[in-house]
Formats: sequence, C-alpha cells, structure tokens
Amino acid sequence: MKEKKKQEDATLNEAKTLYGRRTDLALEVRESFPEDDVEIKGVILTKEEVEDKDIMVTTLEIKDKHGETAMGKPMGTYITIEAPRLNEDDETYHRPLSNEVAKYVKKLAGGLENKSVLIVGLGNREVTPDALGPQVVDNLFVTRHLIREFGDEFKEKHQMESVSAISPGVMGQTGMESGEILAGIISETKPDLVIAIDALAARSVERLNRTIQITNTGINPGAGVGNNRKALNKESLGIEVIALGVPTVVDALTIVSDHLENCLAKQGFSEKEIAMFIQETNDTAMRSMFVTPKSIDESIKQISYTISEALNQCFCGCLIS
Amino acid sequence: MKEKKKQEDATLNEAKTLYGRRTDLALEVRESFPEDDVEIKGVILTKEEVEDKDIMVTTLEIKDKHGETAMGKPMGTYITIEAPRLNEDDETYHRPLSNEVAKYVKKLAGGLENKSVLIVGLGNREVTPDALGPQVVDNLFVTRHLIREFGDEFKEKHQMESVSAISPGVMGQTGMESGEILAGIISETKPDLVIAIDALAARSVERLNRTIQITNTGINPGAGVGNNRKALNKESLGIEVIALGVPTVVDALTIVSDHLENCLAKQGFSEKEIAMFIQETNDTAMRSMFVTPKSIDESIKQISYTISEALNQCFCGCLIS
Amino acid sequence: MKEKKKQEDATLNEAKTLYGRRTDLALEVRESFPEDDVEIKGVILTKEEVEDKDIMVTTLEIKDKHGETAMGKPMGTYITIEAPRLNEDDETYHRPLSNEVAKYVKKLAGGLENKSVLIVGLGNREVTPDALGPQVVDNLFVTRHLIREFGDEFKEKHQMESVSAISPGVMGQTGMESGEILAGIISETKPDLVIAIDALAARSVERLNRTIQITNTGINPGAGVGNNRKALNKESLGIEVIALGVPTVVDALTIVSDHLENCLAKQGFSEKEIAMFIQETNDTAMRSMFVTPKSIDESIKQISYTISEALNQCFCGCLIS
Amino acid sequence: MKEKKKQEDATLNEAKTLYGRRTDLALEVRESFPEDDVEIKGVILTKEEVEDKDIMVTTLEIKDKHGETAMGKPMGTYITIEAPRLNEDDETYHRPLSNEVAKYVKKLAGGLENKSVLIVGLGNREVTPDALGPQVVDNLFVTRHLIREFGDEFKEKHQMESVSAISPGVMGQTGMESGEILAGIISETKPDLVIAIDALAARSVERLNRTIQITNTGINPGAGVGNNRKALNKESLGIEVIALGVPTVVDALTIVSDHLENCLAKQGFSEKEIAMFIQETNDTAMRSMFVTPKSIDESIKQISYTISEALNQCFCGCLIS
Repeated sequence: MKEKKKQEDATLNEAKTLYGRRTDLALEVRESFPEDDVEIKGVILTKEEVEDKDIMVTTLEIKDKHGETAMGKPMGTYITIEAPRLNEDDETYHRPLSNEVAKYVKKLAGGLENKSVLIVGLGNREVTPDALGPQVVDNLFVTRHLIREFGDEFKEKHQMESVSAISPGVMGQTGMESGEILAGIISETKPDLVIAIDALAARSVERLNRTIQITNTGINPGAGVGNNRKALNKESLGIEVIALGVPTVVDALTIVSDHLENCLAKQGFSEKEIAMFIQETNDTAMRSMFVTPKSIDESIKQISYTISEALNQCFCGCLIS
Repeated sequence: MKEKKKQEDATLNEAKTLYGRRTDLALEVRESFPEDDVEIKGVILTKEEVEDKDIMVTTLEIKDKHGETAMGKPMGTYITIEAPRLNEDDETYHRPLSNEVAKYVKKLAGGLENKSVLIVGLGNREVTPDALGPQVVDNLFVTRHLIREFGDEFKEKHQMESVSAISPGVMGQTGMESGEILAGIISETKPDLVIAIDALAARSVERLNRTIQITNTGINPGAGVGNNRKALNKESLGIEVIALGVPTVVDALTIVSDHLENCLAKQGFSEKEIAMFIQETNDTAMRSMFVTPKSIDESIKQISYTISEALNQCFCGCLIS
Repeated sequence: MKEKKKQEDATLNEAKTLYGRRTDLALEVRESFPEDDVEIKGVILTKEEVEDKDIMVTTLEIKDKHGETAMGKPMGTYITIEAPRLNEDDETYHRPLSNEVAKYVKKLAGGLENKSVLIVGLGNREVTPDALGPQVVDNLFVTRHLIREFGDEFKEKHQMESVSAISPGVMGQTGMESGEILAGIISETKPDLVIAIDALAARSVERLNRTIQITNTGINPGAGVGNNRKALNKESLGIEVIALGVPTVVDALTIVSDHLENCLAKQGFSEKEIAMFIQETNDTAMRSMFVTPKSIDESIKQISYTISEALNQCFCGCLIS
Repeated sequence: MKEKKKQEDATLNEAKTLYGRRTDLALEVRESFPEDDVEIKGVILTKEEVEDKDIMVTTLEIKDKHGETAMGKPMGTYITIEAPRLNEDDETYHRPLSNEVAKYVKKLAGGLENKSVLIVGLGNREVTPDALGPQVVDNLFVTRHLIREFGDEFKEKHQMESVSAISPGVMGQTGMESGEILAGIISETKPDLVIAIDALAARSVERLNRTIQITNTGINPGAGVGNNRKALNKESLGIEVIALGVPTVVDALTIVSDHLENCLAKQGFSEKEIAMFIQETNDTAMRSMFVTPKSIDESIKQISYTISEALNQCFCGCLIS
C-alpha cells in the first residue's frame, strides 16, 4: 500500500513541477517529501546548532544516483545555514555568521591554501533581489594583480591567496551566457577554483533572506533568480565550482500553487483533484514574475556585506578578526 | 432580489479588502463590479482610442459622495492610459505616447502657463519597481534656479515654466513622511502645483508596466509600492496635486487571493464560502511581499524616460519635438 | 618692518584669493600664514595626538572679529582630525577613528542627550568625490519614525535619540538651494540640531581623503565641492549646525597657482611679480574644474562608512562597540 | 639651423613626456608640433566640416614607421570628431552627431554586414569620468542571444547583426587585466570585431567632453583614465579592434606643467630652462590625480547616450531613425 502511495506521490510531484513549483534549496526539496523523518536512500541529512548563536547548520549529502533521482539535484554536499537574523543590522550576529560561512567554504573546497580562486557575482545588478552576487563582488578584497606585481614574498607576508573576481552580468545585458564568459576567463587566467555567488528562489517566503546554501555541485540549470540555462560546474568549466546562494525570491507561480493546494486540501479534495485544479489556473504572465519583500534593498546590502566579509577572511589571513 | 445581491456583494467586497486585495488603479476598482456595463451613480466612464497608435484612454470621473463610497476613491478625475507596448524600446511608439501624457497632465492642471511646479519622485531608488519616481526626476530638465538667476526675459525666450524637483526617499531612509518633507519645501519655495510620480500596485499582472494613471486627486493612503501613510493632496499640501502613476507591482496577497477565488468559484463554492476560505489562508509574512516581473529593470528605465520626456515638453516649449 | 611685511602679505593674500586659491579647511588657512609659530590675535590653536593610533587632532578656535578677519572664516571651533590611513581598508584603524569623530561631534553639540537631529548629506550622488554626504546618509540608522510609532519607552529601551536624514541633491538637480529645502524640512519636523556632511576642497593634494574637519559654524558660502551659495548655519536655519567635512578635491586653479608660485619663487621672483604672473595665467575653463585621485571611489566608500559608524554610535547606545 | 631646432624640440618633447604631459588624442599630439602647417612625413591630415551642424571631422592617418615615431602612436587611422555642443542636452544636435559617429565606425570597420561584434565598455563604473564605457554598454541593444535562439530568419527580418557586450571592470576591482578577460571571452564566443569604448585623457581642458576619437588601432598602453597596461589591439586580441574614446579628464601633472611652461615662456626663459624647472616641480602625489569638470555627471550621461544610439543604429537596421 505504501508503494501505491509512493507512485501517487511521484505523479503529484511531477504535476507540482510542471505547474511551477520551484526551489533552489536542496533542504526544501528534502522537506517536500511526506515521510519527513524516514530516510531516503542515497541521501544523508545531519543537523547541528551553532552554540548560543541562533544559527542552524544542516548538511545534506546526495551520495548516489538514487539520491540524485529522488532529490532532482546532482550528487554532492549541500550545506544550509539557517540564520533567522541574517537580514538584521547587528554586528554581533554577523561576525560569528561570517565565520561559519568561511568555515564551510573552506571545508567544501578541501582547504584553500595556495589555491587561486575566481569569485563570480552572478545576477543582474539592476534588479534588487538579483543584485546579491554583484554586491558581494563589490566588497571583495581582490589580490591576484597585487601578487603578480609584488611576487610571492608579498603574498606570504600578507598571508593571502590569489583572488580575482567578476560580475559578468545577465544574458539580456551581454548577449552571452555567463558560462561562456566564465569559460573564457578561466582558460585565460587559470584559477584553481570558482566560487559563484547567486540569488536563489525558495519555495517558502519565510526562508527569504534568512538562509545561505553552500554546495560543491556548482550552479545547475534552473537555479537563480534569472534562470541561467547552462550549468556552471566542474563538468562545464573544468575546475571545482562552489556555489554560495541566498534565496531572495519565490516564483510567483510557486506561491500561488502552494496556497491553492493548502486551501483545497483543507476542503477535502484529493491530491489528484488538486493537481488538476492547479494545472487549470496556469497563467503564462505569471511565469516571468517573482515575489520578494518590500525591504529587499536593506536585506541585500546587509547579506552581501556578511558574505563578502566571510570570503575576505577565507583568502586573506591578515583580515581575520 | 437585486438588492440582496448587492448586499452580498458589499459583504464580499469587504472580505476581499480585508484579505488583501488591493489596487491603486481606479479603472480596476470599476472593473471589479459585477455589473460591468451598468452605470454606477456618481461615476462617469468614457473611453477613447488614440487613432492608429495602439493607445486607449479611459476617463473616469467620480462626481459625488455616492461615487466616492462606491469606488472607495476620492472625488476627481482619473485618466487611465493603456499602452500595451509601454515597456518596449520603440521610439516611434513612445513619442506619441509622451504627447498623450503631456496633453492630459496639462488638461488636469487646467493649463500650465505661468505656473511654477514642483515635481516629486516618490519611492525608493534602491528597490527596482519602486524606483520609477526617482528615475523620472533624474531625467527632468529643472529650470527654477535658472529663471531666478537670469530673470523673466530668459524664461520667455526659452518658453519655459519654473520647474523644481525632488526625490525625498522613503520613511525607512529618512525617518520622515514624504508629506512632511514636501509640506516644508512647499512652504519655503511656494510652487503653484505639485506633480507626484509614483509606482503603483495593480490587481492584475497583465496591467503591470502597461498602464499610466493620471489624476487630480493626488496620492491617497494605501497608494504606491511603499504604502505612504499620509495623503499628498490639496487638503494636506495646500496646493493642487496631480499624481501620475504606473503599476509596477501586484501585492502578493492579492495575487494569491484572486487565484484562489477563481479556482474555488470553478468548483462551485459560493462567494461566502470562498471569502471564508480566503480569510483562512491569510499569511502575515506575505503582507510585506510584492510580485513584479523579472525584466523590471528594463521596464522602469524605458517608462521613466517616456514620462520625463512628457513632463519636459509640458514645461519647456523649446523641447517640444 | 614687520608691519610692512604684513601689509605685503595682505596684498598677496588678496591676489591669491582673487586668482583662485581656495581651501575649506581652517587649518590650511592657518598654515598659509608665514609666521607659522607666531600667535594670531583671536585665534587659538591646540594639537593633541591620539596615543598609538596615528591620529592627530588640532583644535582651532576663532574667538573674535579680529580672528574672523585674519582667517576669513566665521567665529567658532574647528576640529581637524588628521588620519593618514583614513582611506585604507583596515578595521583596526577605523574603529578608534570612528570613536574620535563621535567624541568631537558630541563635544561640539554640547551633548546629544534628548536632542532630535537631522543629518544632511550634501553633494551630488552622481559625481564620485561629491558623493560623500549622500553615501554617509545611505548607511545611517534613522530612528525618528520608529520613536514616533513606538513611543518613548522604545526610545529608552534602545538608548536611541531621534535621527532623521536627507540627501537633498544639488541645485542643478532640484532647481532649489539646499538651504531652501532644509529650512522647509526644519520648520515642518522641528529637529534640535542639524549635522551636515559635505565633501570639501583642500589646497594640498596630500590632505585629500586623509582629514576630517568638524565645526560648529555650519556650512558657509564657497564651501564644498559644489559651492553652495547660501550659508547653512544657525543664522540661516535657526538651529545649531555642525558641519562635518572631508576634503576630496582640490580646485584646479588652486593647484596650478600653487605650483606656479613655488616654481617662480625658486627663480627669485618677488611675491608681487609672482602674483602678477599668476593673474595672467587665469583661465576661465579651469574655474569649473577640480582635481581628485583616481582611486576616489574606494576612498569615498571607506570614509563614508567610517563617518556613518561614528554618527550611528552617537545616537544609538545599543550600537556602541 | 632648422635641424638644430628639431633636435632641441626632440629633447624638449622627451622632457615633456618624462614630466607627465600626456594625451590620448592623436590630434593633440599633432598640434603639439611647432610646425603646425608643415607636413610631417608619414602623417596625413584632412579636415572636413559637417554642413550646418557645428561638427568638424579630422582624419589623421599614420602611414609608416616614420609617422609612428614622430607621433608616438601606432600606424592607422584616427578620426577626431569635434562637437562643441556634445555635452549639451539638445536632441536636434545629437541626432546628426550619432549619424556621423555611426558612419565613421562603419567606415573604419570596412563595413559591418554579417559581422558579429563584441562591444566593450572599459573603465570604472564607480568613478564618474571613467564610467563612459560602462554607461554606453548599459544603453546598448544586444542581440547575440536572440539570434542564437530565434535563428537567421529573425536576424534578417530585423536587419540586425550579432551584438554582444561587456563592461569588464578595472584591475583594482577584478584582479585581472581587461586584456585577459577579453581574450578569454573572444576565444569562447568568437566575434569578428571588437569595439572598445573608453574615457580618455586630453591635454587641454577645452577639449573635455567635446571630442570623439575613433581609431582602428585599438587601445594602446597609457590610454584611458585608468591607464590600461596591456594593449587591446589586433596583435593582442587576434581580431580587429576599433576604439572609440572621449576625453573626460586631463592628468593633473599635465595641466600644471602646461601652465608653468606658458608662464615661464612669457618671462623669457629658454625651453631648456623651462624643462628643467618643470622637472623640479615634479610631485609624486599628483601622478595619481586627474582634473575633470564639476558637471561631469551630466556630460557622461548625455555623451554615453549619443554613442550608444550611434552603435545601436550601426547594428540594427530597424533602429535607424
């Protein structure tokens, strides 16, 4: 009987996906399974609280093909840092948070010593919730040109690694895919590692501007506010790609579908019926719409500052506070 | 029997309002009445198409208290210019559109000759869909200081009126209401007329970035992306206020409620039941969320340019093309 | 004989002023007198080093009319904080520097407790070296609207004073003098104190982005990058005005005149001859030009952050680190 | 005797160069020769006025090694468009000006039909006089992604060529040379032609924001506000590079040296003496300073709009007005 339920779930999940439910957070995919406390084969989940800091870290590992299929996300490690006060202006909260972010970036990279890194600010600087990546890059301390000019002695004296950075813009601005621009820059400047910063879409408005996801799987199609179409990962770029994202929007269709489902479920409709009703409300104008908080400007400013501080301390020993 | 229907409508409308349905467009309020083709007492509606231009102009006049109550908007004239290609980059479309906007601004002002005007760009420059007002002001040709320096001869030679302009910012940035800032500036610089530019909330995503509303009633509580709390009108500021707005967002709660209603109505639920269900889904996090298109940056740039061209030609004869 | 020298100095100073030598720094005016170590009647100068911090504080008091005439600046106190590393990105330097700035703002204001303050970011946001004021305002924590909404209990709980803020723009953008806009806002919102932030002109390029001047005399004609024409001081605005400025430009004519003078003096020309030669090189196109460093973007970002931190800690006890 | 004069000139020119005299305008180099009306071997100069338009076009061709050495610029064609009203807001002036710019870009490219072009906005978006390139790119109509998605039929229907665009930022922001970033993007996206937009340094303040230089020699070391160190030309990038620049700054050292020279020459000093005096005034702080007009924000906005209009009409037949 449970088998039958699972089949129905699969159908339902398919319908959900077809009619616009979308999240870039692996943790939200995991939560969407009804058997919340049952293990999914190939997927390992561990939670850890940062003591006294109101920060929760969840590590989700997708270990094999089965996990990939169940989750709809590529194999790899997904760190989710839930920080309810991420968009508040309180330095005593942001400093330990920066430390956590730095710690997990280093961990996923397998150490950063003597690695040259290219940090990429994805997204559109002109659309507030999509400006996270460019704003992080604006606050970075880049060093590659200094090390090339002043040599290894300078590098060691300041305990710095080689950091370069770029905000390539979005396809509507450049006529090029971010992947093309980055592939070119990588082949020319030969970094060891890419760290890509991007604004993500969550499923729930409660997660917006309160969650940081760090993964060693890179950026995959469908991710981000602006929906990059080409993957940015080891396969496409030839070097490790760590993606660091914060959900800043919910797709409009997702929010509508979720509310419809809740409401109809309360009225006793079956999942099948609900999926059908949702399908009917499908609205093409909504496909290009997103939902974001009115105070998104303050949140982006605060969060981008915290992330750039984390990255600066990853790569420059002299900046560790 | 019709009476009873009306009472039920009133209750329903109240429920709709309570649960977040909101529009700043008088035209959408009018359309929300079931009896679309029946006259509402105290409200006069006329439509006119601009020949060969794909531009439709609707004039809605609220003549008396009855009209005010029915519409939930103050007495006055509301011009709605529907321009389906408003957010496209096509100069041959925008030039006649600018002319229409200029024509109706002049008409609502009862002529502009020898009037000094203060143009106000309301909204938050840092949140893309709310940046319409500040971006219009950025492109204005201001003249007040020139006329004060070079005198009336200069004014007449260039056929210009006195134009001053300000983008006061939003309360979260200034700690002050826009109304306080403007009242102060008006008492000090004594313009004859205020023209306030603001980003509005529509009920339907199809209207976003395709509609311009011009009204002689000013800005009233609840209007705009950022929800100014104090009115900006003749009563509060002491001089005529023409408000020129473009809907750039839909409130998140409005979009969800509308979709729920459509879906439930199709399932045969009564209006009463629907209103109740909607009430239940009420979601506090959503109250501070808005829906906007992904390409909002291009739209705001294009539309603000068209509006500032319209205003520039209103006040400077030498700029009429 | 010394008398005669003084007369000649006076003539020379006049010539210098006529031919464009300009500084907004009282300290530079003081230094321009030949008798550097002799007292000027009515002017008191004291220097103090902040221990171990590479920060030097000079207090210059103009006590009477004689001092006013000699200095060409109004009576009052001028604090000059010389901070050679002001435009470097080093938190361990900026934190004590913020504390010093906060200390002297409080001192010049005669305490800040229970005073409501309007902070004004003068200058043009679109011209990098003139954007200091607007960028400081962008980073302020404003509280006036919160205190008005949540009351005195809230104010006391968070140990905050009422702070409002505005960046009025420059006359070319608004058609209005900053003084008109501020007079209006003050009469409407009734603050007890104005703190005006402005980018200044220095005489020497070495001082650029390394000096902070704080004065209780307000802003006076000729000051600032954009040359406000109307004073912003107690006389014109009716309340105390503390001006906080950082030199970010040198007038082009000043830099040329100073170099000419140095060079010609070395060739043995008399001061009179030099003044005459300088007069001849007078160049109208240069009058609207300024000199600024190529890295002005980084400096403005760094310095505005340090000043806004200083002001935030002045007005919000909970933010003191 | 003339020979001797020439030798002295050469020595003087060397001194001038050593002590900071700099211009990116080939026309200004040509004017710096005393024999203004005598031909320089290997350099051809022709002037043409655009009828009734207050626009003057000078074509300077450097034909051989001798011309290269005399001019200190690489072989190729340099078009200088002198447009005294370039920074005024007058559409009736800018439209024919855009047409001229488009005409010469096409001419230098040897036609644009079926060429795919990468337009590059060089310079620092955060420093107003250096933001010309990025602001031009912000207003471009890019098409490469559209043509790739909708095919050749779409391209032909709209008479458009493939346009991509990027503002790579400056080395202090990215840690990479513009040349590295562009070489990578070119090898990945394979355009036929680069058009690089850059803010230039002039020698005379009168030329600022009034001159457009278009050349088929690309960008060469020392050019631009930010002093790119690597050439961007056919040799370094492998494809044709057309550079389009507008002088927006004068180097501070240049302005001082020129004024000193004028003044000292009037006093009867010999060129040798003058060169020596100038050498003595050499000032390291000044090396990183530039001179620019106070109204640079308005000029950059106006000029970048005119240039982007010119480029848009080069590549999209449907946009020709």
